[in-house]
Amino acid sequence: MSGTLYGIGVGPGDPELMTRKAWRLISAAPVVAYPAPDTGESFARAIAAEAIGPDAEEIPIVVPMRTDRFPAQEIYDKAADRLSAELYAGRDVAVLCEGDPFFYGSFMYLFERLAEQHRVDVVPGVSSLTACAAALGRPLAARSEALAILPGTMENDVLRSRIEAADAVAIIKVGHRLPRLRALMAEMGLLDRAGYVARASLPAEEVLPLAEAPEAAPYFSMILIYRGGEPWPIRPPR
Amino acid sequence: MSGTLYGIGVGPGDPELMTRKAWRLISAAPVVAYPAPDTGESFARAIAAEAIGPDAEEIPIVVPMRTDRFPAQEIYDKAADRLSAELYAGRDVAVLCEGDPFFYGSFMYLFERLAEQHRVDVVPGVSSLTACAAALGRPLAARSEALAILPGTMENDVLRSRIEAADAVAIIKVGHRLPRLRALMAEMGLLDRAGYVARASLPAEEVLPLAEAPEAAPYFSMILIYRGGEPWPIRPPR
Repeated sequence: MSGTLYGIGVGPGDPELMTRKAWRLISAAPVVAYPAPDTGESFARAIAAEAIGPDAEEIPIVVPMRTDRFPAQEIYDKAADRLSAELYAGRDVAVLCEGDPFFYGSFMYLFERLAEQHRVDVVPGVSSLTACAAALGRPLAARSEALAILPGTMENDVLRSRIEAADAVAIIKVGHRLPRLRALMAEMGLLDRAGYVARASLPAEEVLPLAEAPEAAPYFSMILIYRGGEPWPIRPPR
Repeated sequence: MSGTLYGIGVGPGDPELMTRKAWRLISAAPVVAYPAPDTGESFARAIAAEAIGPDAEEIPIVVPMRTDRFPAQEIYDKAADRLSAELYAGRDVAVLCEGDPFFYGSFMYLFERLAEQHRVDVVPGVSSLTACAAALGRPLAARSEALAILPGTMENDVLRSRIEAADAVAIIKVGHRLPRLRALMAEMGLLDRAGYVARASLPAEEVLPLAEAPEAAPYFSMILIYRGGEPWPIRPPR
């Protein structure tokens, strides 16, 4: 009997936003793997820390924090080999994924290497998308509105045309691109319709009109733009 | 002390995909409200049933199942008045929301009526978007891909141009529009890149290539289209 690979969404940051299924599977997993930076703590592990069993074998998958680059194939080849050996040995493996495993996550690199030979179960999680909308206190989209999710890595002219084809927009992967993205929103006349959220659901959460966002945004930040309806009435949670 | 209105995402259907926070807040809530059809069971209540306390006062908000129409303002006016009275009386109110409260949900109609006068806390949930991707066994989007969420209520020519402006697309609110949407995908040469999911995460979940989907799709169904990469290799979970 070979083991099952679980790709588990652990949500946007608040450990209480883990699902009950995530908690159960992580607690029971003999092997727990997660992405980790070359220095410092793994965010996914920090979210799930309380759920990990005391006897679990932990496998950090160290990915250098060069988030712009296509992730090194070699790292995922090696990690997949390691997890594959655990699975063939009959042990279930829980891979912890920030947010949701299939929403712009790195789990796909393991999934594409392991899904042919192994049983895989993907457990969806709360994504940063809806956590940021909750933090801003404004619905993402409703009724017949089109919602676009656009990576901040896109060039300005592509971003512009895609923003114009949507009613609501979430720009993800903001980080150091914030000044460029903010300038584009100003050019497009959308600055008073754009909000900025960093570290949604964590104690250090920041919610600001985009106009007031800091120059240096953290990696876990997002810009939400509402083209339709009223100009942005930011209503921070009370 | 007036009460807090909690808009609580209960996830896509599997009760185990509720977050721990949702469970805690629902269990403790003296008043629990939820949308309900004019006949039959409330889906949101069914998901959260086990969490609701035995002494909770339940307030079904009956919305006729005419999902195409703009929901009757009167129903939400009345419901908001009722909930407002509970809040002013110092009782917390948990509103159960299928999926996530701010992702195309009806919670926004209560939110826009109550957020000015009352303390509101929105608890994000697992949305059907990521639950459907998990069911299909294919990542929604990755790296620099643009993801569009489009309601099936849109006209074909609008849908067409918006699909062409995205790498991955989720069409929501499918229901009886499935034959029209499928014909459009065929016209656009995307039929072998489109998957269909109904009732994601429930025992009655259905996962099919769009070409094989039934004519009459249920309300809780979605079409996912992957324009980039390989043609659709549906890999149903094993």
